[in-house]
Amino acid sequence: MALKLYTNQQSRGVVVEWLFLELGVEYERIELAYNTTMKAPEYLKINPFGKVPTLVDDTVVIYELGAICAYLTDKFAEKQLAPTLNDSKRGVYYRWLFFISGPWESLTVDQMRGVHIQPEQKMFVGYGDDQDAYHALIQGLDEAAPFLCGSQFTTADILVAASLFWQLKIGTLQSHPSITRYLDSVKQRSSYQNFLALMGEASADSATN
Amino acid sequence: MALKLYTNQQSRGVVVEWLFLELGVEYERIELAYNTTMKAPEYLKINPFGKVPTLVDDTVVIYELGAICAYLTDKFAEKQLAPTLNDSKRGVYYRWLFFISGPWESLTVDQMRGVHIQPEQKMFVGYGDDQDAYHALIQGLDEAAPFLCGSQFTTADILVAASLFWQLKIGTLQSHPSITRYLDSVKQRSSYQNFLALMGEASADSATN
Repeated sequence: MALKLYTNQQSRGVVVEWLFLELGVEYERIELAYNTTMKAPEYLKINPFGKVPTLVDDTVVIYELGAICAYLTDKFAEKQLAPTLNDSKRGVYYRWLFFISGPWESLTVDQMRGVHIQPEQKMFVGYGDDQDAYHALIQGLDEAAPFLCGSQFTTADILVAASLFWQLKIGTLQSHPSITRYLDSVKQRSSYQNFLALMGEASADSATN
Repeated sequence: MALKLYTNQQSRGVVVEWLFLELGVEYERIELAYNTTMKAPEYLKINPFGKVPTLVDDTVVIYELGAICAYLTDKFAEKQLAPTLNDSKRGVYYRWLFFISGPWESLTVDQMRGVHIQPEQKMFVGYGDDQDAYHALIQGLDEAAPFLCGSQFTTADILVAASLFWQLKIGTLQSHPSITRYLDSVKQRSSYQNFLALMGEASADSATN
């Protein structure tokens, strides 16, 4: 099989698996273990960080969650999980992909490390500070109608919703009516139940309520 | 004019301007000042972080440098600054876009803040640690032939080369034969001289030697 996904059940590889479900595409799933097979010399040749997920399409190696998802979305463009190249909504799509992979990810990692932003650092820190990033998230979600790119459900929704579900679950994200309203729309997507199963959740209600 | 770029001469907006030169596309350039017009209420409605660059295409607002560059590249797909949707090299293209916008950016910000990675944090920090990220960079550049996606110069080269040029200049990046070899290829691109002018540099040699 041409598409191989190196992953771990506890990793963000589940987000790629959600996308695969939406695309209806088959793939070979290779489970790696933290600290052992993930750090083996042969895997480090594929992904020098020794992290998952990594997608291998024939001879091409793709890592970074956002890159894998953007790539698969374009490869199976007929599934219409992104605005087309000449649709200006593609700008909104990319904005969310890079927001969640860049500033939002940085904020999350800083929270996990207990690193706080000093006022003089706001200028060069991509997410500004906690308050700026939260405000940007809410402002963005308020424009969702009902999805991030409007009526079209896209891969941006998979990446953003998966992140928000997970952060609400572990308690690092403060709930907000705009978040609840947006996630309620995503929950109506039939693949959402499959995503919950991948996450080891029993029902739609247990993740966010 | 439909395309408006909010920027500042000292910001990474110069990278978008380099891309505009490659695309041969006209745009309206709006210079904002740090701490004043960049934090004005009307601009915060456009970009809640009060940062630049931001691209506005008619009514669509795009921020995050990677998102702006990916969007413009697709909008002007006929300029061939990215592999096409059905080309597996598009995976390499996205890998670099998200690598430089995610882990590499996080590493740079941590260096500027003097934040160091503890061994137990490597698992959840996207770039692992300084050594992992530098190794991934070099391993990736060693595959460049001569550009990141092979013989095709792409927007990934603009984003990666601009970052490396800047980091070598300010001394936060340790030089390496693989970096020099790659940047020498990019320097042969005719738009590189224009990029230097945007950066306020006199000649190709002054930036990296």
